[in-house]
Amino acid sequence: MQDVNVGIVGLGNVGIGALTILAENAGQIAAKLGFRLNVAAVCSRTAKSKNLPAAISNALVTEDWREITAHPGIDVVAELIGGTGAAREVVESAIANGKSVVTANKELIALDGVEIWRRAAAKGVELAMEASVCGGIPIHAALREGICGDRIETIFGILNGTCNYILTEVEKHGTAFDLVLAEAQRLGYAEADPSADVDGFDARSKLSLLASIAFGVRIDPASIATEGIRRVSPIDFRYAHQLGCTIRLLCSARHEGDGLFLSVRPALIPLTTVLGSVQGAYNAVWAKGAFGADTFYYGRGAGSLPTGVAVVSDLMQVARDLRFGSLQRVSPFGFTDIPGAEPRDIGEQSREWFLRFRVKDQPGIIAALSAILAEYHIGIDAVLQLPAEDWRSLPFVITLENTVESNLRAALARMAELDFMSDPPFAMPLERGL
Amino acid sequence: MQDVNVGIVGLGNVGIGALTILAENAGQIAAKLGFRLNVAAVCSRTAKSKNLPAAISNALVTEDWREITAHPGIDVVAELIGGTGAAREVVESAIANGKSVVTANKELIALDGVEIWRRAAAKGVELAMEASVCGGIPIHAALREGICGDRIETIFGILNGTCNYILTEVEKHGTAFDLVLAEAQRLGYAEADPSADVDGFDARSKLSLLASIAFGVRIDPASIATEGIRRVSPIDFRYAHQLGCTIRLLCSARHEGDGLFLSVRPALIPLTTVLGSVQGAYNAVWAKGAFGADTFYYGRGAGSLPTGVAVVSDLMQVARDLRFGSLQRVSPFGFTDIPGAEPRDIGEQSREWFLRFRVKDQPGIIAALSAILAEYHIGIDAVLQLPAEDWRSLPFVITLENTVESNLRAALARMAELDFMSDPPFAMPLERGL
Repeated sequence: MQDVNVGIVGLGNVGIGALTILAENAGQIAAKLGFRLNVAAVCSRTAKSKNLPAAISNALVTEDWREITAHPGIDVVAELIGGTGAAREVVESAIANGKSVVTANKELIALDGVEIWRRAAAKGVELAMEASVCGGIPIHAALREGICGDRIETIFGILNGTCNYILTEVEKHGTAFDLVLAEAQRLGYAEADPSADVDGFDARSKLSLLASIAFGVRIDPASIATEGIRRVSPIDFRYAHQLGCTIRLLCSARHEGDGLFLSVRPALIPLTTVLGSVQGAYNAVWAKGAFGADTFYYGRGAGSLPTGVAVVSDLMQVARDLRFGSLQRVSPFGFTDIPGAEPRDIGEQSREWFLRFRVKDQPGIIAALSAILAEYHIGIDAVLQLPAEDWRSLPFVITLENTVESNLRAALARMAELDFMSDPPFAMPLERGL
Repeated sequence: MQDVNVGIVGLGNVGIGALTILAENAGQIAAKLGFRLNVAAVCSRTAKSKNLPAAISNALVTEDWREITAHPGIDVVAELIGGTGAAREVVESAIANGKSVVTANKELIALDGVEIWRRAAAKGVELAMEASVCGGIPIHAALREGICGDRIETIFGILNGTCNYILTEVEKHGTAFDLVLAEAQRLGYAEADPSADVDGFDARSKLSLLASIAFGVRIDPASIATEGIRRVSPIDFRYAHQLGCTIRLLCSARHEGDGLFLSVRPALIPLTTVLGSVQGAYNAVWAKGAFGADTFYYGRGAGSLPTGVAVVSDLMQVARDLRFGSLQRVSPFGFTDIPGAEPRDIGEQSREWFLRFRVKDQPGIIAALSAILAEYHIGIDAVLQLPAEDWRSLPFVITLENTVESNLRAALARMAELDFMSDPPFAMPLERGL
């Protein structure tokens, strides 16, 4: 059967990863497909000075992506530039020229994936995007096809490797967040401006994308309740362990009643669960379905080769669909329509809670806090206090029975005003039922 | 787009699960496909007395499967009888009549899957088998398509839910294997004849099937080194925990040199790994690739609805391929050819080991054992002895550095003859490097 010709635009980390795999794994790729994936052209602004694998020495090497998207011999274009500027032009130009597109671009897909897919469908070509979320985990394929017979009710995810690395370090060594972050920046595990990671914005884009595949709706990432990990401290892990839990930046999407509750925030997760065992710069997704799917997926969230595997696997799927006449057999979202939807007001969600307080020690603290909780009809589960290290800012914990979030927030606002409070109370959901 | 008509043969656990999902999830299935999956006919020996979902009340109900495989209006047949008798006739008859087949039949596929697929290919129809291994985990889809760009080097699996349930109970309650097995039989979690499960035969069939998808070779299950869990005792867990490990029936397939080492046997797995956190009647697969895939999949191994999800997801894939003209876009094994292969001699494999001894207490035991180990040039890592409960048959443990298995077996045979040995030594691989 005839080769499929691939053009690769962007030779950063992911592009070089994909290229390496296409060169070094060419034999097995052909054994799987029954034909070859041929790298016909590569493009980057510095392509000519790059050290490219010898196996692709016959490829056109260019610094102008238009030479690739307009090339009559190229069947599929892999857009691996990232961002929403030139990347969008590359994708749109390739589709306009009747070529299928594989992309690793989370930003572009979260922003405009549905529209881009519609345009591809109108041209009779394919859009594939496995690499856009959880690079090393085939979570799109699993949700879109592997367990598509089920109706997903809940998705839990650990979707930001940087946060998971930082939290694991805080947990293992009892080092403060700021110090761990500085060290992670020094090692190149965290960006100079870490906000996208540690404040949860990266994770919420990914959650929005996963939700569209799991539930078939389009959610604006900005509408997802989001809180980062800056306030998580070593003492929180010590209390969490007392409760048999660890703390992770938990992305959660639950179908309840007539809508979805979505949130990205630090939460307590039982240590004995597979989700609680995810350490370091890994990602994981737990999907629970109405009909028995209770599946968990784990792997590298990013990195040159893991994301390269996702790109190459997508290229193989598109190539199969090209050769067997089935372009568009499945929408990249798994649903034939992805209507926009508003998440449910997170204030209506009911969870158990972990509240950590730092106070100036004085009599009557528990009395004052429990009076406020009683006023809002919130039930206390337990009061925990470890032997204190620092009496100037004594940390202790109250866990709450199931409490509607808006109610809790009102009570927390009242508590924050109490004169013995040296820090606003820090609340995390306690996900014992995972 | 036109409906796809499904015929279901076999209304046991899995058949009823699939039927329930097809009825109750029909709306979302249509939203995903863009057309409906219509249950046109069902067959079982007692079909007419079954309580079928009202939603499929228009279906032909028959006790003769030939009415389904010969039915001109049926596009896909789901064979959910199991076994290799009538099931084989159903599959062959459906294919001969030009219908695609979805099956949950591990026995039949392990025995003759490649041949059946070739026959389907020759007729231009499809064979789908996601439900045949790890019912609730979309592991076929992940290996065959999701991470197909990688070259898998190692597969670890927990593939038998009954064994994992028994081992978890032995671990949690310190109860002896026999008692846990009897209770599992009482509860219906284990068969009256438990041999297929607890002696590892079920798991080795599954490993053989997974190996064909991961490595593209056909392995005779009987050629896989197999040892069951009957000898695993509560004391082994106490020692394993001292080493930071748990014990699971580990299915392992590693590509080393020019071949595959395959084994199914109890092994020590670090508690801090995701594989070590798999408890109860769950299955899990860990795949490590040459190019960065280090992915882990977890879910229900069996059960009416979880396996039903796999069957329905397969029906949806086949239906998509039917409607988009792409039957045979991908082989059910992910490779276009599956040659037969012999596993490498497990005796050549080198691992760390955990040896547990029960001896009659007398002086010179360690001296005698270590003399034998020295004679075979086997390095001792540690000698462990918990405070003993029963001095008549004192259990203690020796862990070994990397040792070639044939060498270890020779040393163990020598040790078994020592007059203080009250039980032959029990050896398990110590998989610290997972």
